Parts: sequence; C-alpha cells; structure tokens
Amino acid sequence: MTRFDDWLAARAAAREEAGLVRRLFNSDETGPMIDLAGNDYLGLARDPRVVDGAVAAARAYGAGAGASRLVTGTLSVHAQLEDALASFTGFPAALAFSTGYHANLSVVAALADADTLIVSDAHVHASLIDACRLSRGTVAVVPHNDVDAVSAALAGRTQPRALVLVESIYSVLGDASPLAALAAACEQHDAVLVVDEAHGIGVRGEQGRGLLDEVGLAGAEHVIATLTLSKSLGAQGGAVLGSVALRDHLVNTARPFIFDTGLAPASAGAATTALALIQAEPHRVSRVREVTAALAGACGVPVPAGAVLAVPMPSPSAALAAVATAAEHGVRIGCFRPPSTPDGISRLRLTGHAHLTDEEVATATKVLRELLA
Amino acid sequence: MTRFDDWLAARAAAREEAGLVRRLFNSDETGPMIDLAGNDYLGLARDPRVVDGAVAAARAYGAGAGASRLVTGTLSVHAQLEDALASFTGFPAALAFSTGYHANLSVVAALADADTLIVSDAHVHASLIDACRLSRGTVAVVPHNDVDAVSAALAGRTQPRALVLVESIYSVLGDASPLAALAAACEQHDAVLVVDEAHGIGVRGEQGRGLLDEVGLAGAEHVIATLTLSKSLGAQGGAVLGSVALRDHLVNTARPFIFDTGLAPASAGAATTALALIQAEPHRVSRVREVTAALAGACGVPVPAGAVLAVPMPSPSAALAAVATAAEHGVRIGCFRPPSTPDGISRLRLTGHAHLTDEEVATATKVLRELLA
Repeated sequence: MTRFDDWLAARAAAREEAGLVRRLFNSDETGPMIDLAGNDYLGLARDPRVVDGAVAAARAYGAGAGASRLVTGTLSVHAQLEDALASFTGFPAALAFSTGYHANLSVVAALADADTLIVSDAHVHASLIDACRLSRGTVAVVPHNDVDAVSAALAGRTQPRALVLVESIYSVLGDASPLAALAAACEQHDAVLVVDEAHGIGVRGEQGRGLLDEVGLAGAEHVIATLTLSKSLGAQGGAVLGSVALRDHLVNTARPFIFDTGLAPASAGAATTALALIQAEPHRVSRVREVTAALAGACGVPVPAGAVLAVPMPSPSAALAAVATAAEHGVRIGCFRPPSTPDGISRLRLTGHAHLTDEEVATATKVLRELLA
Repeated sequence: MTRFDDWLAARAAAREEAGLVRRLFNSDETGPMIDLAGNDYLGLARDPRVVDGAVAAARAYGAGAGASRLVTGTLSVHAQLEDALASFTGFPAALAFSTGYHANLSVVAALADADTLIVSDAHVHASLIDACRLSRGTVAVVPHNDVDAVSAALAGRTQPRALVLVESIYSVLGDASPLAALAAACEQHDAVLVVDEAHGIGVRGEQGRGLLDEVGLAGAEHVIATLTLSKSLGAQGGAVLGSVALRDHLVNTARPFIFDTGLAPASAGAATTALALIQAEPHRVSRVREVTAALAGACGVPVPAGAVLAVPMPSPSAALAAVATAAEHGVRIGCFRPPSTPDGISRLRLTGHAHLTDEEVATATKVLRELLA
C-alpha cells in the first residue's frame, strides 16, 4: 500500500459515510424508461437523420481528426459546423472545440491576463470556475444574478479590462440570467459579458437560437457566447461565438484548442445536421417548453426558464430514494447533491424533452405527483 | 471599439510582427498529400473497419451520450472501451474522458490536494501544465529527464504525498522518458508516477501496449497512465489507467469528468475497434517504427524513441518556409514554433505513419533530403 492508496481509501470511506458515493451505470441496460434526466432536450441524439449526419462525416473524413486543428486536424466539416453555428446564433464567427468544457476554459484563459478583472456569478458551471483558475486574471465572485453587485465590481476595478461570466440558463437551478441588465452594465463599464448558452440553445429564442437572441443581444459588441454541441444538438463538442478577431485570438492562444485533437468528424457532422433540423422543424422548441411546463406542474414548482427543473429535497439520501422510486415506475430522473449544488441543498433534477409523447408525459407527471405528494 | 477590441488588435499585430501567426486550413481541401504531420500513427482513423466501429456505435447508441457519465451518459460502449483499454495496457481499471486533455487535467487535479507535491518534467504537455494550475498542490518543475532532480525534489519534500508528471514519449522533441529510473525513485520516496502515454500507445511495447509495458511497469502500484484515443487509436477522447480505487476516486471527484458530457458513442466504438485491430495486426507497430527510422535518416537526425521526429530550424520563418516547400512537393510536415516549444527553438515536426507505402516513403525521404540539404 502506498500513501496514495491509504489516502484514496480514506476519501472513499468519507464519501460512503456522507452518503455521497457516485456510481456509474450503463443507461442502455436498464430497460426502456421515460428519460427526464439527460440533456438531449430535443431528442436529436437518437434522431436517425442526426445519426446519419454523424455516419456520413465519419465515412467522409474518418473516425478522428488525427491532429490538432492547427496541424492537420481542421477539416471542411469543422468549417461547415462553424459557419452554421455563427449563422444560427447571430454572431460573426464561431470556433468549435472538442467539448463545451474546453470552450469555456479557452475563452476565459485566453482573454483574462493579469490586467483583467473576472466577475463571476456564484452559480456558474464548473468549467467556468476552472477557467478562472487557469487564467491570470483577478477573480471576484458575486452573488447569483445580482446586477448591482456586478456593476459595483466593474466600477470599482483597477484593471483596464473586465470579463463578466454568466450562464443564460443555469444548469442546476434552471433559472435565467438577467442578460439585458448585465449587458447594459458591461457596456457602461467597458467590460465583456461571457454568456454560456449551454442550456439556452434549442430551448430559448426564435427557433431555439438561445436567450441572447431572445433579448436582442446576439452578436452584440460587448457579448461573447459559448455553447455545447452535446445537449440540444445531440452530439459532442462546444463552441465560442464572437468577433472574427476573437476567433483569431483563440486560434493563436487558447491552449485547450491548440494542444487538443480536433473534434471528431462524426460529432461535427451530427451537430451540423441537428442545427439544420432545429430550424426546419421549430415545433421541437415549443414542445420542449410545453413538456417542461407540464413536469413543473406535477412537481409543484414554478415553470422554469429553460428545460431544467430543480426540486429541493431534504437530504442527499431522500433525493437518491426518490430517484430510485421513480426508476421503479419507469421514469428516469436525476439528482444533484453536494458538491454539485451551489448552496449545499440536494435537489431532484428533471429535464423536459421535446420527443416525449403525450402518453409518456401523462405517465411521467403521474409518477412525479405520487412521488412528491 | 471596446478596450478588449483594442487589446485583441494589439495582440494580433504583435503576432504578425513576430512571424507567429497561426492560421487554420481545411486539410481535406489541399489535394492528396503524403501525411507526415498528423498523429494518426497507425493510419486507423480512416481504416474502414474503425469507421465501421464508429458507425455501428452511433447507430446503436446515438450521435451523443446526452448527459454526464454520472447522470445517463454512461453507455455499455463506454464500459466495453474501458475494459478493452485496461486489458490492453495491463492496468486494473480504465476511465474514459471526452478528450485526452481532460484525462490529464482530471488525474492531477483530483489527486493533488494541498498536502501534495507535484514534480513536473519541464517538457510535459500543455494539459499537464494546466492540470497543475487547476490542482491545489505545490508544483516543482524539474529539468527535462533529470532523475536526480526528481529524486532530490521527492526526498526534500514536506508534503506527505507526491506526484511525478512525465510523458513516456515527449510530443515535441520525440525523446523517451527514463521510466524505470523514475519509477524506482517514486517507489523509494513513496510517490506516484503519472505517465502520459499519448505518443507511446500503438508505437512502443508488445503490440503497441506502450512504453510502460515495454519496461515492465504496466499496472505497477506506483504508476498511473493516461492516454489519448485520438492518435494511434484514430478516434477522439482519452483515458486514465490505474487501480479500481483510483477510478472510483476520479468518478467521484474529477470535475472534467463529472461536469462534462460523456464521450460520443462513435468515438468510443472507433477506439474499441482500433484496439482490437492493433492486436490482430501487430505489423502496424513495427511498420510505424520502420517508416520513422527512414524519415530520420533522410532528415539526418537520430532515430527517435517514438514516431515523432524533431528537426531544429534556425527561425520560425525558416520552419514555415520548409513546410511550404514540402507541401509544394506533395509532402505535409508540421512545425512547432514558440510558445509550443519548451526551449524557444522552432522545429520541423514529422511523424511516422504505418500506412505509408514503400513508394510514398521513398518520395517523402527524397523531398526531405532535398529540403534539408
């Protein structure tokens, strides 16, 4: 036994005692279930046309990009994806990454030098928190959705440049960011608003173009967006949306872009196909909101801003027990336990899905009502 | 114009003046070339059977995993990949990540707390450097391949635990790490040796099992390996190899694992197929070394430890000019310029590929001899 082995054993025992052990299971081996847990909001990951997009790209370009995007790993399937993303979101340029995590790491680390203040909402995603650690900027964490606190931090700064980090729809509580007010504060104080649209794309805005589109901030000079290709778009990867100059800067300086193999062609092809489908069949966007509203009613919580529903539970073990009971009734829900919650409160986490039938929604709401009665 | 726009413009002008501008190009649109630049060492990314593995997984499981591995994003294709990776590399357990970058970020950040010294070789990959920044450990960078410096750092430490970070084959200079001596030092000082096998898998060891296998350290108690699925295995993704306890620890604590969507099924399926092919057709491993030796001869440099060849050049512009001349003659080579080189020296970077024909190798070596004459 090494000291590391002793330490690993002690950590495992502590997790067990706290009721916070996480275990993996193969979700394809649990029998047919109504999925209220995954982030494939529009049901496109298994849409045969999206799968065909993945298949065609793999056949045309290979199973992998084979090198960094800067060496030989940029393929025309990446350029097509980036053009489609820029057009869809309303930004001048897009740069694709192998995961959404890398998009967030990259934009913050590449923009925030020692002369930059980073003002970060207390509820931002782990990837943005890690991005702050990778950057050279000074970080100020402000209370959740507190525009006054953001303004005060920007007004009082000594650094010439500032970034404000938010999500359009927050991934744990499912609430929306006050984007218009934040963008006005950023414009007033010459700061850049970085908006993670991971949970906004496909769910908010005309044809699912995101919450920035909905509030008229798509392509705004003081705004940068990031997104993931692995939720509404059903694939893998992420992107940064902004100016052409920003894209050039990231290509030249973003370490998780420069030193990583390019996104697999199949994922790029799938996401490009999904973008076309969302625009051709916009009913998916209204349907996901309709389904989410029905789930919220069944859970007795307000209709959320996106497709993520959070239902507070008294303890991690109560949350786990509810997940198990729902599963016994054929409904898969998730739960968030510390340290994945911003306030230490365990929650059921449910997601609306556009592809659920009316019968499936009826079954799911019945199970949820009984579960939470 | 915002202050950020001014800053981006100034940075772009500085890159231009230094001759360090990086530009993307679509590598599938430059006409047929002999590829000595990508990292698809065994030519498996475009092998029809590997592509079929990607296609079958996309059809069976969808275009994306749809959620974090901890929610519903673990699929049996991930379990199959992890079993195959553990068996191939000789470690008790494997955990797959969406990129190799994440595998490195995760293992260091999840293991190195404030009571950990991280001893890092000066030439390790960007992902391991970023991993150190994300961790809570104290970092000591030691001179490249200097076992005495590693031993001294470990012996003089005040922290109870220590990690030593190295690559088996270094990605820029292409040289090998003195793994046996490093592992002995780690065992003596109760430290863990973390070995990035990104450039070792498929190239070194019996059937390409890696340099750790070759020196008898596969599965050793004091050793953890990381690898990428996007080089010899022709796909996308990465993995950490170690004990079952390590894997459980990463599942529970590694942020780039917990908060990222699972690896796309197509990439997992392709990598699993590639692992089977490498073992069924081991001639690829000997062939890549044969081709690399021929390229080294043509460049007048020693035969490297892996499939990466580095040829020092007098300046970044000379390196770029050589790349352009080779391309005119149908041979694609790469170059590494600052800040991608550990010592500021620009280099041509060539990679051996198992799938090149004797005629292609003859053409390539002729072009290289003339280029470097």
